[in-house]
Amino acid sequence: MSELLSKAKKASECARFLSTLTTEEKNNALNKIAKQLLQEEAYLLEENEKDIQVARSNGTPEGLIDRLTLTSERLHDMAEGLKQVASLQDPVGEVLSSHTRPNGLQINKVRVPLGVIGMIYEARPNVTIDASSLCLKAGNAVLLRGSSSAIHSNTALVKVVQRALEQTNIPIEAIQLLEDTSRDTATEMFTLNEYLDVLIPRGGASLIQSVVKNASVPVLETGVGNCHLFIDESAKKEMAISIAVNAKTQRPSVCNAIETILVDQQWAKEHFQELLDALAEKNVSFVGDEKTQTWDNRIKQAEQADWENEFLDLIVAIKIVDTLEEAITHIHTYGTKHSESIISEDAANVVAFLNRVDAAAVYHNASTRFTDGFEFGFGAEIGISTQKLHARGPMGLEALTSTKYIVQGSGQVKG
Amino acid sequence: MSELLSKAKKASECARFLSTLTTEEKNNALNKIAKQLLQEEAYLLEENEKDIQVARSNGTPEGLIDRLTLTSERLHDMAEGLKQVASLQDPVGEVLSSHTRPNGLQINKVRVPLGVIGMIYEARPNVTIDASSLCLKAGNAVLLRGSSSAIHSNTALVKVVQRALEQTNIPIEAIQLLEDTSRDTATEMFTLNEYLDVLIPRGGASLIQSVVKNASVPVLETGVGNCHLFIDESAKKEMAISIAVNAKTQRPSVCNAIETILVDQQWAKEHFQELLDALAEKNVSFVGDEKTQTWDNRIKQAEQADWENEFLDLIVAIKIVDTLEEAITHIHTYGTKHSESIISEDAANVVAFLNRVDAAAVYHNASTRFTDGFEFGFGAEIGISTQKLHARGPMGLEALTSTKYIVQGSGQVKG
Repeated sequence: MSELLSKAKKASECARFLSTLTTEEKNNALNKIAKQLLQEEAYLLEENEKDIQVARSNGTPEGLIDRLTLTSERLHDMAEGLKQVASLQDPVGEVLSSHTRPNGLQINKVRVPLGVIGMIYEARPNVTIDASSLCLKAGNAVLLRGSSSAIHSNTALVKVVQRALEQTNIPIEAIQLLEDTSRDTATEMFTLNEYLDVLIPRGGASLIQSVVKNASVPVLETGVGNCHLFIDESAKKEMAISIAVNAKTQRPSVCNAIETILVDQQWAKEHFQELLDALAEKNVSFVGDEKTQTWDNRIKQAEQADWENEFLDLIVAIKIVDTLEEAITHIHTYGTKHSESIISEDAANVVAFLNRVDAAAVYHNASTRFTDGFEFGFGAEIGISTQKLHARGPMGLEALTSTKYIVQGSGQVKG
Repeated sequence: MSELLSKAKKASECARFLSTLTTEEKNNALNKIAKQLLQEEAYLLEENEKDIQVARSNGTPEGLIDRLTLTSERLHDMAEGLKQVASLQDPVGEVLSSHTRPNGLQINKVRVPLGVIGMIYEARPNVTIDASSLCLKAGNAVLLRGSSSAIHSNTALVKVVQRALEQTNIPIEAIQLLEDTSRDTATEMFTLNEYLDVLIPRGGASLIQSVVKNASVPVLETGVGNCHLFIDESAKKEMAISIAVNAKTQRPSVCNAIETILVDQQWAKEHFQELLDALAEKNVSFVGDEKTQTWDNRIKQAEQADWENEFLDLIVAIKIVDTLEEAITHIHTYGTKHSESIISEDAANVVAFLNRVDAAAVYHNASTRFTDGFEFGFGAEIGISTQKLHARGPMGLEALTSTKYIVQGSGQVKG
């Protein structure tokens, strides 16, 4: 039996037991893992160093090496994260609805774990701990498939996690890492419907699309955000400019940063230069269509791809629009249904935008940068769902659960 | 552009408009469709007759021809169904949660339509109307891909539906049928992520598995139910026997009928013959393992496949078990996580069974035959989900919706 099959099978067996754990048992394990991480700091940093050396010798860019690097501070952050997850409310067992039918059957809908979660991710060792802690708190077994470039770090982290679990009543099969990081193993995971209940890919667009396109196991799609800001005619100048600058520049590489600003032409007549000045001051450069280019010569010609894709950089596409309708249509055409914002003081336009724009999060007079499990108050985040099934938007612990109907009778048969 | 692409694109455009419809507009359309179905009875029966003639000349079994057949009575039932859906509460717009963050952002989670639903189904023309009415009520556009054997009936039904929509403000693209019923078209639907938000297959196990295995569009998996009844040592004799007979024989061809009975050996010592007598009286035949066969010579040798698959017929697999643990393990090994029932008067065993058996619906002292949207009080059903993402168990209107976060601010930017 391959490593994947053997571990997937063990995860599936283990999940049956995990679903029966008390909140206290799970929290105890999370706190034990936090403690163990700090105790084994030297070992973890040593193993991490092996990955960094390989990355360096492969000529990996410094940005990626930074993501891969563990430090004492980062280990402390991970331990804090584990304690925070322990402090969150346990979603499992929550009764979502309860009703009695005319025939006397009592039907309760309760939250239960999903079962086994397959996590496929790139070279960030912190995902190993983030994902493990959230999956465990929601009563799931997790099968981790990280990047080969982080294999020493991930192996060490999971060994430490399992050494912590050995001090509890939770089997170590609750959290397992695939040591075989070949592409074939990932592909095999995609169709392991017998043992995996859901796959969660975390990483770049191509990883996510590969999972979405090829998996028969249900997927929680996360990631791509081609987000827009629409500045309506009635928008307050200072607010619009401050939100545009924040949503574009505060952290341009993330999915909830904006990529395109749609500006109402009446508003533009008065404030366009000032908007561009404020963005330019933060080193943002501009692309736009021919019409918009006539407004300001700092705007370069936009390619079709500029409307369609994320820049994830200090570049913004700008388009002057005649109407709210034009803005909504543009967003419908190019948006990825992640986060979209309108700046406006016109109640009718606000309602139209919020109701008609189809996205996980629609904003009025606020930056799109708030689409995030922590900012939404969930206390944690496994990712931001851009699909419409199961969970949409920031996913906290609840997104890692399913439901079950518990039906209590007294001998009822169907007539 | 192919018929599929052209219709899928129109559906996607139309879905934007449907999401803004009022409940009254949708109900008006549903009632208009009901009326139109009755008005055009002669035309519908005539077109249906063409399908029946083709089926007869192809030597189609009478059972399948019956499923294909429309009658005046069945059209009246469809019209009644439409009116019932009109009377159900509109899920769209429901506010599921609302909270204000410390920074003043007000975050509302509201129910919205899914968008475009691709429905892939076999030769039951009633699904055309059922699915259309539920999708429309939940504000979705639907793209129907029925069986070639029902093409005349489905084409006529959708024409009639669209003639009713023409009398309303709802575009006819809300409900479209693919006239091309080739396998290639279905396969193309599987990966049309750009325009389809979800696929719902309805039909036999092979159809459903083909969609689950090959689709990159998210799927709502319905169907297969390898359901078990466990008769615990403490079970009341009459209750256990009456539920066993009901769950096996009341309608053996459906997914929520039981396929295996697990009998505690202590209970069996006293009541086994009586259980078998009651089932045999309803023409049920028995298969079982070697040990169970020694209890009664009416039990034939079970093949491995008998534990794994649905009989969908008056056959039941029977196994004498020593413990609750053995019953739970058997269900974990062979069950399809649909519906599982325990008959017991022992509170500890009941709790263990209900908590530890992983299924969409777990029952205590009741027949599994109640797993059904109508029996659960949802007023309608698009299918019974056997997956854990999004919706589990009977799916009513809510399963045809997604959610959206509406975030209201006053200029908030991320620090």
